[in-house]
Amino acid sequence: MSLLVENETPSVGYKKTALNTVNRYRGRGQYDYEQIHPIVDEAPILHVAFQSSPDQGNFDFPVILPMLGCTGNFQEQDTAGTRSIYLHGYVSSRIMRLSRNNSSSDDSGSSGIPVCVSATLMDGIVLALTPNHHSCNYRSVVAFGHAHVVEEESERLWAMELITNNLVPERWQNTRFPNKVELKATGILRVDIHSASAKVRTGTTGEAREDLKDEAMRKKVWAGVIPTNYVYGTPIPAPTNMHKGLPEYIEDWVEDWNEKTQRYAAEAAGV
Amino acid sequence: MSLLVENETPSVGYKKTALNTVNRYRGRGQYDYEQIHPIVDEAPILHVAFQSSPDQGNFDFPVILPMLGCTGNFQEQDTAGTRSIYLHGYVSSRIMRLSRNNSSSDDSGSSGIPVCVSATLMDGIVLALTPNHHSCNYRSVVAFGHAHVVEEESERLWAMELITNNLVPERWQNTRFPNKVELKATGILRVDIHSASAKVRTGTTGEAREDLKDEAMRKKVWAGVIPTNYVYGTPIPAPTNMHKGLPEYIEDWVEDWNEKTQRYAAEAAGV
Repeated sequence: MSLLVENETPSVGYKKTALNTVNRYRGRGQYDYEQIHPIVDEAPILHVAFQSSPDQGNFDFPVILPMLGCTGNFQEQDTAGTRSIYLHGYVSSRIMRLSRNNSSSDDSGSSGIPVCVSATLMDGIVLALTPNHHSCNYRSVVAFGHAHVVEEESERLWAMELITNNLVPERWQNTRFPNKVELKATGILRVDIHSASAKVRTGTTGEAREDLKDEAMRKKVWAGVIPTNYVYGTPIPAPTNMHKGLPEYIEDWVEDWNEKTQRYAAEAAGV
Repeated sequence: MSLLVENETPSVGYKKTALNTVNRYRGRGQYDYEQIHPIVDEAPILHVAFQSSPDQGNFDFPVILPMLGCTGNFQEQDTAGTRSIYLHGYVSSRIMRLSRNNSSSDDSGSSGIPVCVSATLMDGIVLALTPNHHSCNYRSVVAFGHAHVVEEESERLWAMELITNNLVPERWQNTRFPNKVELKATGILRVDIHSASAKVRTGTTGEAREDLKDEAMRKKVWAGVIPTNYVYGTPIPAPTNMHKGLPEYIEDWVEDWNEKTQRYAAEAAGV
């Protein structure tokens, strides 16, 4: 059975398949690389699901791990096209062990363990006149792929720098370079994306037509959007810190991030 | 095979099993109800993983959905003890359909589909002298359980109010009461928790002993914590809003939330 359904723009995005097609509120579904990858990169935390091994007597529960990571393409480093998702974790953690032990291939031609990576940015609470029309403004991505442990040293080092600087830009070059033991203790997972989609909601409330006729009720119930965003506060030096003042690259980034995310949430709340 | 291992305080928390025991950084693991339930309730978004049906030719990928929900116990509504996780979604969504169609029981004596619910609050970025000692301050919960579609009307209505007021306190009683069609279109899932654990990191940087001897390097690299929290911005009325001004219950809640989460993140960054 083929999963692949024609996409209008297959060269710049993920193909729509039975797995990744947004069914509820179809208009919110997005499949282009340039819509999907920035959401993954902006999310401070990614959630990664995998099926844990049956020998743990786990009643077939999937497992979710919160992880740090971002998109990247080691072969074509500046591409806006195809990318994998790089994740960072302790080298002997369960997901690393499972990925390392599982190199059998399946129908898709890939090896590694099947995972789902989810990135969610909440941009606002949408309060309509009745709770059942409440909603959220958000940008969310769900990506399906196979997770591999990256063994090649140059790709590992490149990915560590990528993930570090995705969290705080320019951080890698402003720290002490890791030693061999530290490098070995850090596991890097590369999720090769099989399919992905984004779902985005922006805008103000959507109301039932009947409700808009009821002016007495509308005077009693406040309707609108409460914008929300992640902010970074004033950095607090460690007791062991000896650097004078706050470096400009951190100060600028905190300011830019807060301004950018606050503006997005407010604009998303607009009509 | 029994999963159940003795917990020191089984009456106030989840038993430690092979499934939920925190292995990496054991000291960060928490199992008590009073530690776990508030994290789930505070997280603005929950991530829910389930195994999608094989008839979609999905190469066994798990699926993650971002959903709204919170903890609750319909029988003993004010209990600080055992709780389920109530989730809210569209009645014909895939996870609702799967849960409804799947009522077979398994070894655990429960019916419903096996899911993992994850709640993550990011409280800060911990920047050590070397990237491999970077970390985050966070509070995260992973709960394993079986998801059931709630059919009983009084429990459904109670859960809708619970979830609405968990998002914005007092919102339910300040809106137009939903009609029969709206109530029917809203699906409520109850996840009966089989096991759960929380993982919490607070504090400043943890450095390698060797690094603390290198004063020249310490003068070059800034080390410390950038606290982070979700904030709610100035509420933006819908163009159709007819309520004068902002209701006090929203204004107070936004102010309290921002003050509380900012304070937590700053305190968590302390030594």
